[in-house]
Amino acid sequence: MSEKIKIAQYGLGPIGIESLKLAAAKSWVEIVGAVDIDPNKIGKDLGELTKNDKLKGRKVYRSLDELPTKPDVALHTTVSKFKAAYDQLEPMARAGISVVSSCEELLFPQLLNAELASKLDKICKEGGSRIIGTGVNPGFVMDVLPVCMTGVSRDVRAIHVQRVVNASTRREPLQRKIGSGLPPEEFRRLFKEGKAGHAGLKESLALIAHCMGWKFTDLTEAGDAMVADHDIKTQFLEVKTGQCCGLHQRAEAKVNGKVALTLDLKMYLDAKNPHDAIQIEGEPPLDVVVNGGVAGDHATVAALVNTAGRILNAQPGLLLMTDLAVPCWK
Amino acid sequence: MSEKIKIAQYGLGPIGIESLKLAAAKSWVEIVGAVDIDPNKIGKDLGELTKNDKLKGRKVYRSLDELPTKPDVALHTTVSKFKAAYDQLEPMARAGISVVSSCEELLFPQLLNAELASKLDKICKEGGSRIIGTGVNPGFVMDVLPVCMTGVSRDVRAIHVQRVVNASTRREPLQRKIGSGLPPEEFRRLFKEGKAGHAGLKESLALIAHCMGWKFTDLTEAGDAMVADHDIKTQFLEVKTGQCCGLHQRAEAKVNGKVALTLDLKMYLDAKNPHDAIQIEGEPPLDVVVNGGVAGDHATVAALVNTAGRILNAQPGLLLMTDLAVPCWK
Repeated sequence: MSEKIKIAQYGLGPIGIESLKLAAAKSWVEIVGAVDIDPNKIGKDLGELTKNDKLKGRKVYRSLDELPTKPDVALHTTVSKFKAAYDQLEPMARAGISVVSSCEELLFPQLLNAELASKLDKICKEGGSRIIGTGVNPGFVMDVLPVCMTGVSRDVRAIHVQRVVNASTRREPLQRKIGSGLPPEEFRRLFKEGKAGHAGLKESLALIAHCMGWKFTDLTEAGDAMVADHDIKTQFLEVKTGQCCGLHQRAEAKVNGKVALTLDLKMYLDAKNPHDAIQIEGEPPLDVVVNGGVAGDHATVAALVNTAGRILNAQPGLLLMTDLAVPCWK
Repeated sequence: MSEKIKIAQYGLGPIGIESLKLAAAKSWVEIVGAVDIDPNKIGKDLGELTKNDKLKGRKVYRSLDELPTKPDVALHTTVSKFKAAYDQLEPMARAGISVVSSCEELLFPQLLNAELASKLDKICKEGGSRIIGTGVNPGFVMDVLPVCMTGVSRDVRAIHVQRVVNASTRREPLQRKIGSGLPPEEFRRLFKEGKAGHAGLKESLALIAHCMGWKFTDLTEAGDAMVADHDIKTQFLEVKTGQCCGLHQRAEAKVNGKVALTLDLKMYLDAKNPHDAIQIEGEPPLDVVVNGGVAGDHATVAALVNTAGRILNAQPGLLLMTDLAVPCWK
């Protein structure tokens, strides 16, 4: 066996805590500590904070520089926007620390911030580090998996992906994020203002287009409220008939004048038949269904940790999931 | 755009001809010629042989050395057994020619011929070439795709794959290979003697186990005849009720004393509900279905050519499909 991979957790929100615990359970991982800005967490023992004995003796630090050992890889779980993440990522890139991030825009940062992406790529190459954004969505079901399917395609003309998530089975922050209990008009307004909605759908679309070698035009993203047709009560909240119980978000783009990429996402309470589905128009036509769908939170954490186990095999740079070897449980 | 990849076709059977034609249609490919042992083909113009104008002026040669230009990649489509392929592969490895092969055992040559695999790996590294075995099955639906799904797994306890192929829609050699028209007993005897059956199932299983980091035991492979329950007539042949109309083949192995890997393949005439299905026992559980299945012949050729478009990015060596970046249409 090769040496263990030294991992630090950057960000101790719910996803950060879970990814830290999963990483600590792996035989190939050595946790060196965690970084968070919350004064209530700084200085705390990770064993106590996570109620996980394997993490005893590892601590939370205010900044990267204070970590007792330089990690090989940081699991970065703080923000959704690449611009907001940039100032956290750059020092790691310079220090030669590779980063696996849940930052949704980092799946394909070139889409919204090509210049910043190019700058970070250069710093990674100079520093000998790799930075990548991943997760389940974005990061797998609506981008990497459809791309993987085209490995057996003679021709690809269009790719359509649908994901239906039953939010009733998910954590509280997600149930709130999708607008549960809001008047539908209020949710629509928030979506328009960019204050509600799922991050990363456009990036998934752009990653697929990049892999297909397609220049797309007319990229649109629309968001609507799912309206409860019955009273709903979850572990965390209640929604009355007629209130918002989730979101329906859709991104699409044209290639050579025709709509060739559509990503359709529904996340709502009491969703019937949750699933992921992919249709590839081409030769051969492909029709894939993941029955029940890929569960979001658990699987997102798994995607982060599994990627951490493979990222050091790749060349330095700001990487895409499709640059790495085939995803695999580690 | 980078320079074109120079490709030679090695083997001009039905799959070879199709892969040559598909490669010739790609903007990133330059075909330098083909190699075959058939005296009726040697010296022929590939444009005439394939009835494809794009191949005009390229020829069939008796051996690799006679090719007018050294290819970057050879598409190798001759035999199913690694041992039989070895003498064809070694000179290419030495010459620094990378190879994408349909040889089924080459998907995971370490299983049956660890020593020979290690020797070829060394020669590849010395020669600066990459050799890989791929296709649809083995090469994708029963190995790479299930491995890819585990990229979002926290835990994996067992992997089960089923493939049902409607052989009525396939080429004649396949319809014959599966024993169509034989007395079932005769097919069972041939299977036992290793003279019938689908190659590569054990290799798919071994590749999955390798990726999961599992040591398996009690690897078994069983084959049975599918018996026609009605008279069948295809484009190529007829089968009477009670005769063999295809095969049912199954490989399984234990991990830590429990059956944790099962691959089940049915290829038969008039098969109902052709599909590929994957169940991953673990956290989260995953249940994937490719409705209609991934069509064999067309997709196999696509897998070869798409892999040729990506193999030069990998380090030299005898490679596994799971060493390469995520499969992708090229």
